[in-house]
Amino acid sequence: MTGRPARACLTLLLLAVLAPAAPVAQQAQVPPEETNFNRKPFFLPDAPQDIQTLSGVRVRVTPIKGLRYPWALTFLPDGAMLVSEAGRNTLRLIRNGVLDPKPVAGLPKVMDRVTGPSAGVDIALHPRFAENGIIYYAYWKVKPEEQDKQVQRTVRTAVLGRARYEGGYVLEDARDIFTSNAATDGPVATRIAFGPDGKLYMVIGSPGATQSAGKGMDAQDPSMHAGKVLRLNEDGSVPQDNPFVGKQGYRPEIYALGIRNSIGLIFHPQTGELWETEHGPYGGDEINRIKAGANYGWPLITFGRSYVNPLQDGLPPASVQPPNAAPGMEQPLAVYIPVIGIGGMTFYTGNQFPLWRGNLLIGGMAGRQISRVAFNRQGLETRREPMLTELRQRIRDVRQGPDGLVYATTDEEDGAVLKIAPAPETN
Amino acid sequence: MTGRPARACLTLLLLAVLAPAAPVAQQAQVPPEETNFNRKPFFLPDAPQDIQTLSGVRVRVTPIKGLRYPWALTFLPDGAMLVSEAGRNTLRLIRNGVLDPKPVAGLPKVMDRVTGPSAGVDIALHPRFAENGIIYYAYWKVKPEEQDKQVQRTVRTAVLGRARYEGGYVLEDARDIFTSNAATDGPVATRIAFGPDGKLYMVIGSPGATQSAGKGMDAQDPSMHAGKVLRLNEDGSVPQDNPFVGKQGYRPEIYALGIRNSIGLIFHPQTGELWETEHGPYGGDEINRIKAGANYGWPLITFGRSYVNPLQDGLPPASVQPPNAAPGMEQPLAVYIPVIGIGGMTFYTGNQFPLWRGNLLIGGMAGRQISRVAFNRQGLETRREPMLTELRQRIRDVRQGPDGLVYATTDEEDGAVLKIAPAPETN
Repeated sequence: MTGRPARACLTLLLLAVLAPAAPVAQQAQVPPEETNFNRKPFFLPDAPQDIQTLSGVRVRVTPIKGLRYPWALTFLPDGAMLVSEAGRNTLRLIRNGVLDPKPVAGLPKVMDRVTGPSAGVDIALHPRFAENGIIYYAYWKVKPEEQDKQVQRTVRTAVLGRARYEGGYVLEDARDIFTSNAATDGPVATRIAFGPDGKLYMVIGSPGATQSAGKGMDAQDPSMHAGKVLRLNEDGSVPQDNPFVGKQGYRPEIYALGIRNSIGLIFHPQTGELWETEHGPYGGDEINRIKAGANYGWPLITFGRSYVNPLQDGLPPASVQPPNAAPGMEQPLAVYIPVIGIGGMTFYTGNQFPLWRGNLLIGGMAGRQISRVAFNRQGLETRREPMLTELRQRIRDVRQGPDGLVYATTDEEDGAVLKIAPAPETN
Repeated sequence: MTGRPARACLTLLLLAVLAPAAPVAQQAQVPPEETNFNRKPFFLPDAPQDIQTLSGVRVRVTPIKGLRYPWALTFLPDGAMLVSEAGRNTLRLIRNGVLDPKPVAGLPKVMDRVTGPSAGVDIALHPRFAENGIIYYAYWKVKPEEQDKQVQRTVRTAVLGRARYEGGYVLEDARDIFTSNAATDGPVATRIAFGPDGKLYMVIGSPGATQSAGKGMDAQDPSMHAGKVLRLNEDGSVPQDNPFVGKQGYRPEIYALGIRNSIGLIFHPQTGELWETEHGPYGGDEINRIKAGANYGWPLITFGRSYVNPLQDGLPPASVQPPNAAPGMEQPLAVYIPVIGIGGMTFYTGNQFPLWRGNLLIGGMAGRQISRVAFNRQGLETRREPMLTELRQRIRDVRQGPDGLVYATTDEEDGAVLKIAPAPETN
C-alpha cells in the first residue's frame, strides 16, 4: 500500500470518529446514484410470483435460481435448456425447470465478467443439431500481446467457435473457426444467429470512445470487424455472395456496418428478416432491421448523446448531440429514450399468451423489464408495454421455449432463468 | 336502436349460447389492449404504502382519496391545498392531509370531462395572493354556436379567468379576462404559470388532425392562439414587450409557437426559465425550455409518428415519420420514446429528499409513474428514473408542497392526491 491511500483511510477514520452524526440531508450531497444507478441488485424471491401486466395479462413467474450472471439460453431438441453464464467457460443445463448442479465443460477459456453489461458467451445450435450435434459459440478471447499495461485493462477480441455436444457434461472438439480483428477493453458483446439461408450471422459491438483499445470510429471502418454484422459459412469461411466481397478495403465477412453494442440478434420467424437490438449512448437504444450492405450509422448518427462517465473520467457528459439521420444511413425501426439497457429478444409465436402473438419481447437491464412491442400489418410499431417491472430484475435475454412459455435470464450475480407462464385462474 | 346493432347483439347471444366454451387462447384473438391499453384503472389501497425507488430512496405514499380526476393543485399561504377536478366547476380543499367534503364554488361552467387526458381547470395564485386574494384559472369554455352538429362534438375554446378567494367555500367576482380564438373538440389542455417578470404565461394545446374543429396546422398559424404559449398582463391585456407585438399577421399575445398538447408549464426556481412538457404523438413526449419568439415545430417536426386511432378512424396508423428537426425550429431538451403520457412537473428544491434536489419530477399517465430527471451543471439531462410504477396510477401533476414533501394527482375516476414523504426508518 502506498502512503497516499493509507493517509486517506486514516483521514476517513478520523472523520468518522470526530464528526458529529451528519443529518441525512448532508450525507446525500454527492448523489450515490451516479455510480450505481440502476445497478443495485433487488432480491428475487424463490417462490413463483403472479403478476398482472398493464394490459391485463396475468403471468406466473417461476425463478430457476443458482446461476451467476446468466447470459444466453437455447433449447435442445429434447426440451432441455442450455444456459451460459458471463465469465464462465461452462454451460448449465436446465431440465424440467430444474438446474443441473453439474456444469457442462469444454468451452475455451473466456474473459471473466468485466464491469458492465456484456462479455458473456453466446450459443447457437446448428440448424441440423439433432443430426450432427454441432453447437456454435461466440466469445471474447484475451489477447495478452495487446494487454494495455498502463491501465491494466485486458484487451480481447471476438471469436466464433464450434464444438460437438452429444449430451452429458462436456462439449467435444471445441475449436475457434473465426477470429475477428476487433479489439476492445470495454463491455462489448457479440451474438450469433443462424439465418434461414443456412449462414451464420455474428454481430460484434464497437469499442467505446473512452477505451484504450479500439476506436469509436471502428464501426465505420470497413477494414475492421468491430461494430459490424458479419455473415459466415458454417465452417467460418466467407460466403462468396456477401455484399462486400471483392470490394477494396472491406473485410469480406461484413454484412452490415455502423453497429454500436448489440445484445440481440434474431431472425423474424415469418419474414426471415434479421432483427437486431443495440445499446445507445445516453438515450437511444435501438431496434434495427438489418439489410445486406447497409450502414446503421454509429457513431456518426444516433438518437442518444455521446457521453463519458463523469466520475470515471473526470469530465462532464459531452454536450454534443450527434445528428439523428444522415443520407445513406439507416434509421432504427424503433428507439428507446430513455434507454432500457436493451437486451436480447424473441418474437412470440406460441399459444400460451395469445395477446402477445407476433409481438417482440425484449429484455431491459437498466429498465428492469421485458418490453413487449406490438406491430401493425405494415410492420410499424403500435404499442409498447413494460412488463415485469415489479420484479426489478435486469433482464438480459428473452426466449420462447418449445412449450410456448417465455424464458428470460436475469443479469444479476444471484441470477436466474425466469419461467413465465400464464397464471392459474383464481376464483 | 337500429336493426343492425340489434341483429349483432342477437348473433353474439346465439354465439354465446351455441359455441362450446372457447379456450382462452381463442378469446383473445382481437387484442383488447388496442382500445384500453394503459387506461384500465388499478386499485389504489387506502393505506399508506412504503416503496423503495430504483435508486434506493424509500418513500411513504399516503393517498388522499375522494377526488374525481383530480387535475391541478396549488398551495395556499396557510399550507392548505386547492385541487381542481376535471369537468367540475368547483375546487376542493385539502388541509393537513384531509379532504374537505365541501367543495369551493364560484368557477364558471366548464366542459365536462371528455374522453382523453385533458380538459381540466388549471389554477394559479397571483404572486401577491396573500395580500390581494386573486386567483387565476384557465379552462375550456363551450362555444355552442360552433357545435359540430354532424358528429355531436362539443366545440370549445381556452379562456383565462380571474377571481378572488378569501377562504371559505366560494370564489368571488369570477370573470373571464382573456378569451382565445382556439377551437377544438379534442382532449386538449391549457395551463398557466406566473413568471418572475410578473406576467402570466398560458399554454394552449393544438387540436389534432382528426378533430372536426380546429386544424393540425393551427400550431404554426400566427393568427391562432392554439398551439402557442401566450404571455399576458395580469389583467389579461397584451404586454407591449411581447416578441410579436406589431408584427403583421401575428396575435400579439403569442410568446412561442409550435406547441402540441402541453400538460406542464412551470418556471425554473433558480434560472427563471420557462419549462414546458408536451404530449407527443406515438413516441415523442417532450420537455422544452421555452424562449421568447421561438418555434417548437409541431406539427412540422416531431420525434413521434403521426397517428390516427385505427379503431376509431378505421385507418391504420400513418406510416409517415415527420422529420425530427428543421432550421429555425427548436429541439426539445429531452424526449420520451415510448411516451409516458407526460404530465405536470415540479423542480424539487426541498430538504425532505436530498437526492432529488434540483431534479425535475414529472407525472406520467400512460407510463403510470413519476419520472425523475437529473441534470448536470450544463443543464443537460444525465439520468432518468421511473418512480412509483408499483402504484400503477396515472400521474397527472406533481408539485412540491411548502413542507418539502411531494404531492401528485392521479388521473383516475377514483382519484387521489398522493402525499409522498420519506418512509420512516425501519429497524
